[in-house]
Amino acid sequence: MPDSSPTFSFRLLSCSGSARRGEIVTPRGIIRTPAFMPVGTAGTVKALYPEQVRKAGADIVLGNTYHLMLRPGPERVARLGGLHEFMRWQGPILTDSGGFQVMSLANLREMSEEGVTFRSHVDGSKHQMTPERSIEIQSLLGADIQMQLDECIELPATRERAIAAMELSLRWAERSKRAFEARAKPGQALFGIVQGGTDLELRQRSADALVAMDLNGYAVGGLAVGEGHEVMLSTLEGTTPHLPADKPRYLMGVGTPVDIMEAVARGIDMFDCVMPTRSGRHGQAFTWGGKVNLSNARHADDPRPLDAASSCPAARDYSRAYLHHLMKSGEYLGAMLLSWVNTAFYQDLMAAIRQAITEDRYDAFVAEHKARLSAAEGPNL
Amino acid sequence: MPDSSPTFSFRLLSCSGSARRGEIVTPRGIIRTPAFMPVGTAGTVKALYPEQVRKAGADIVLGNTYHLMLRPGPERVARLGGLHEFMRWQGPILTDSGGFQVMSLANLREMSEEGVTFRSHVDGSKHQMTPERSIEIQSLLGADIQMQLDECIELPATRERAIAAMELSLRWAERSKRAFEARAKPGQALFGIVQGGTDLELRQRSADALVAMDLNGYAVGGLAVGEGHEVMLSTLEGTTPHLPADKPRYLMGVGTPVDIMEAVARGIDMFDCVMPTRSGRHGQAFTWGGKVNLSNARHADDPRPLDAASSCPAARDYSRAYLHHLMKSGEYLGAMLLSWVNTAFYQDLMAAIRQAITEDRYDAFVAEHKARLSAAEGPNL
Repeated sequence: MPDSSPTFSFRLLSCSGSARRGEIVTPRGIIRTPAFMPVGTAGTVKALYPEQVRKAGADIVLGNTYHLMLRPGPERVARLGGLHEFMRWQGPILTDSGGFQVMSLANLREMSEEGVTFRSHVDGSKHQMTPERSIEIQSLLGADIQMQLDECIELPATRERAIAAMELSLRWAERSKRAFEARAKPGQALFGIVQGGTDLELRQRSADALVAMDLNGYAVGGLAVGEGHEVMLSTLEGTTPHLPADKPRYLMGVGTPVDIMEAVARGIDMFDCVMPTRSGRHGQAFTWGGKVNLSNARHADDPRPLDAASSCPAARDYSRAYLHHLMKSGEYLGAMLLSWVNTAFYQDLMAAIRQAITEDRYDAFVAEHKARLSAAEGPNL
Repeated sequence: MPDSSPTFSFRLLSCSGSARRGEIVTPRGIIRTPAFMPVGTAGTVKALYPEQVRKAGADIVLGNTYHLMLRPGPERVARLGGLHEFMRWQGPILTDSGGFQVMSLANLREMSEEGVTFRSHVDGSKHQMTPERSIEIQSLLGADIQMQLDECIELPATRERAIAAMELSLRWAERSKRAFEARAKPGQALFGIVQGGTDLELRQRSADALVAMDLNGYAVGGLAVGEGHEVMLSTLEGTTPHLPADKPRYLMGVGTPVDIMEAVARGIDMFDCVMPTRSGRHGQAFTWGGKVNLSNARHADDPRPLDAASSCPAARDYSRAYLHHLMKSGEYLGAMLLSWVNTAFYQDLMAAIRQAITEDRYDAFVAEHKARLSAAEGPNL
């Protein structure tokens, strides 16, 4: 096939209720949706080799612009051939705008219409993040899917605060689009981010304005920040109908297996979350039988693997007793094995979700698995 | 082949000067000597999957009795099927006696003829280690090669102190042997440990007494504890001639690549050291070109791999710039990749040593590689 005009596109393959099965086609490969993107914060999905992430079934990973801009620096990554080459991930990469982590990690932040100035949490150095600089960094990294800079507020917030942040985010979306159009390579994509807190009217206004900009995809931002599962779902229900059917929809920073299943039922196509790797480093495993906390002493003598039927060697070949020992002893291998278990489980979950949509039995799939996956660790696990 | 009478044996295949190429045959597989045993302190070679250790070329790993007795406990490991099953290592395992780490890690130690009492550095619990208990623990773990309990003194030491420790160690060797004979499974082996500080007459007395006990192999203990490279080598030169040619010889806790090369030249067959994994966790890589400290800023923009010709993916496929970034960022993957690089390098070194002995060009091999391997990091690496 000729490689001369690489393009970015989305095609819808089937639906089951509002749940969508599709494919995002990028010059670096196809992303099967609904998709979960493992988070490679600082150019590595923590405690995993890139081959493991790929073999687990991930089509795309996420990189964090804030972390990478501070260390090793986007100009350096560009000189070294871009983020794909740097971290040895040849599939598509999505980068966030950096805005969320500036707000949650950086020091001495000052917001203005222009952007946000802050000091690095690593070395105290001063930086400015604007919509244009965010796109410049994401372009230097070589991200296949780039995100507009937005303002993400804490919830609950006043309506005035939510309006102001939403409207600023729209102006930043326009500036991001201009910057992206000036820099983008063929086949790269820019996503806008719907804001508006939990106010459905604001969400609609935000979505309508972004859709009018004709971006490559649309994210729902500002959720999973403490508003609760039901509020998140009702906000999604009021938002996705205002997004075009022929563009991918991305729910940022979500979430638990049940969050993902319910968001897919409301028309979301893409997810990212640190949960599988972070939980793994803290001793929690995700399995089809539910969550298992390997730090718990009741696993100390248990010779069973986490899941004898798993395709992941870490879930299949090591005893719970050994995993418990590794966690208690603070051994690297504990974090390595459980991050692997969880990354593979999340990809297995997405594959099962896609299969259920293809077979138009998505509601039954959710009903079958939801209770077990959401339960606290049970006595028989 | 019938499996009914598994045995432990050593056969010498060739020599080059005093350097020996051989094979230790155990029921769990052949150990090609000279051999380097990666250290799996607490039931895991730190930051590596067991498959990586095997594929790197290791025939045998070492487990630490002191760590495993405190956590998860030898009786628990035995209930779970033994250490091989627990840590998923199907090849031979050697365990130390625990004595060295009782001396270096435990609190409130009290020595007596009977043994040593101490408090755990993990939880303060009180324990007693005797020659009999050490063998009992090693048997519960299922170690293929077990070590006698000995008293390892700090150097320099008075002659009186060295004599007393050496003689106590001989009495403990006798008790270890009786305990081992009462417990050992067919094909398991017990090694004695030559002590005597840097006094060659004491070393000879120790060696002669141990050889008279007709053990399965002989270790040289109490070296690499601060006496210096040259003193270590001269002590070895005065010790190995008193050990039988038809038994394996093990230099405990050694060492650098050059230490190993020089000790092989003095008739040593087996080594263990935490250096490859500990150095890896601290950013130091071993290569045929010499040591490389990846934490150094001069690697930040270097697109070259550590060793493009390596059989180890970690040395071949990742840039020095990326490895530098991972170390600076404290990412798990940095420790994982460099522990892998070094474990593979040590096994490659042993394979090259064995090949050079087979071809009777061992002195030339040492001369060819010694300077580069011992140099501090050079400007062209």
